[in-house]
Amino acid sequence: MSLLITGSVAFDTIKTSRGVAEEVLGGSATYCAYAASFFTPVWLASAVGEDMPAENFEDMRQHHIDTTGIEVVKGGKTLHWVGRYSNDFQERTTESVDLNVFGDYDPTLPEEYRGAEYVFLANGAPEAQKAVLEQLPNRKLALLDTMNLWITESRPALLEVMKMSDGMVLNDEEVRLLTEEPNLLAAARKVAAMGPAIVVIKKGEHGAILLADGRPFVLPAWLTETVIDPTGAGDCFGGAMMGYLASVGEVTFEALKTAVSYGTVVASFCIEDFSLNRLKSISLDDIERRRTEVASMVSWN
Amino acid sequence: MSLLITGSVAFDTIKTSRGVAEEVLGGSATYCAYAASFFTPVWLASAVGEDMPAENFEDMRQHHIDTTGIEVVKGGKTLHWVGRYSNDFQERTTESVDLNVFGDYDPTLPEEYRGAEYVFLANGAPEAQKAVLEQLPNRKLALLDTMNLWITESRPALLEVMKMSDGMVLNDEEVRLLTEEPNLLAAARKVAAMGPAIVVIKKGEHGAILLADGRPFVLPAWLTETVIDPTGAGDCFGGAMMGYLASVGEVTFEALKTAVSYGTVVASFCIEDFSLNRLKSISLDDIERRRTEVASMVSWN
Repeated sequence: MSLLITGSVAFDTIKTSRGVAEEVLGGSATYCAYAASFFTPVWLASAVGEDMPAENFEDMRQHHIDTTGIEVVKGGKTLHWVGRYSNDFQERTTESVDLNVFGDYDPTLPEEYRGAEYVFLANGAPEAQKAVLEQLPNRKLALLDTMNLWITESRPALLEVMKMSDGMVLNDEEVRLLTEEPNLLAAARKVAAMGPAIVVIKKGEHGAILLADGRPFVLPAWLTETVIDPTGAGDCFGGAMMGYLASVGEVTFEALKTAVSYGTVVASFCIEDFSLNRLKSISLDDIERRRTEVASMVSWN
Repeated sequence: MSLLITGSVAFDTIKTSRGVAEEVLGGSATYCAYAASFFTPVWLASAVGEDMPAENFEDMRQHHIDTTGIEVVKGGKTLHWVGRYSNDFQERTTESVDLNVFGDYDPTLPEEYRGAEYVFLANGAPEAQKAVLEQLPNRKLALLDTMNLWITESRPALLEVMKMSDGMVLNDEEVRLLTEEPNLLAAARKVAAMGPAIVVIKKGEHGAILLADGRPFVLPAWLTETVIDPTGAGDCFGGAMMGYLASVGEVTFEALKTAVSYGTVVASFCIEDFSLNRLKSISLDDIERRRTEVASMVSWN
């Protein structure tokens, strides 16, 4: 099934106890698209500046990501995020963010993209997310991600796009901010009542919670000592989930649970290196192998 | 197999957003013993003051907890802990703690107890934990719990009792404090290198990690909206684990995983009411039923 992903394509400067990466490729849609592309080809809609090197587009295309939908704004600059992680990776501080051309992104999708049936709205302004949805009359499954900024600054627009979405993927901090409910199961139920029937709460090292048809499913994260850079892990989680769902073309509870397991595994690879480095070095076989190890790590009688 | 549990029997005053409980029965060994007693009879060794009502001993005995080993110190007062939880139960503050007779507890076990093969050292001073171990020449499995206070104030004694123990059960905050390692898998490996071959890290609402023979196992917590009072949940976790292990009389990796699942379930009941109230109202059937639900909540293909 055709899959469209929209969100940011960006430069990240990332500072961690394990090293610093300067102006590397990042962005919610980038991570999401790479993760999804292990399962199905991806159409990517975003906006960048002229400073984005052509080799990044070439890399994406080699990874089955169509880049026709990435607008290159003449004379513009690409979104640049600078972030720092605490030594234990428990806290992330944004040192600066220049939205640049992504701040004015008013998506006009290529004709071909408008037939997309599966769409993932990776983190970005809710207004742009809504504009994308409105250009997709054939959509069967729309999953939505967001971040603290939009929850506090663009709440009405976010609530609107939530009503138009079939599912929402967000982290524990975001869901608590959105619902003002500290209990995660209760918070997930509140989100479902606000529109998206499928809710996935990402808890980083503690795994994820799925709520669909009122039924909960919980999966721990892959237990690892190899954490180099957590940036993009949540986007990879959503992207892999969506890529798998689009590849099987069904959204049963069983398919959603399997999708969560793929999200868990691809996110676990993402954090093993800076930027997209680790994702570029693995294959679906590696993903399947670790998925078996995750199954073994959580199995009991 | 015979099971001995030692630690505190106390009065707790607990303040939460769901209400206040004044001077109710608590203590690490109390919670631990009640949890274990669903699986096997328990010998309980502790010290209380003359202010402990006789009905508490009677209740324990009805729950297959032998109280011969609880010294009642003449003219003494029972440990009294006063704690407050934040509205979201994410933080706990000790408002006051009067160790009273438990501060001077120098255990002398009843003759019968000295044949115990399974022993759980619930939270208490490492010196007293060591004194208990030294009175148990036939011990086959000794599991150790502790708390921040002993890690910072009695580190040498704690390290000594760790070397004498077969396993350690502690929470994420404690293991990070003990090992100065933020990554929980790496921290668990460090603990194992310090003595106890079996390590269980309790993560509250995020579940638990088991490391044994270098192999990890992860189980999420029971997902619930019913949280009244988290006090004692960790003690119940360890107690149920140990009760199960003592009841089957083996310590294989499979048995340990099953033990973790019982710990998870009994802890989930504990938090549904103040003090021991919920544990007193359930049966092993209720535990088995919820264990099936936990299995269903985490199962996938």
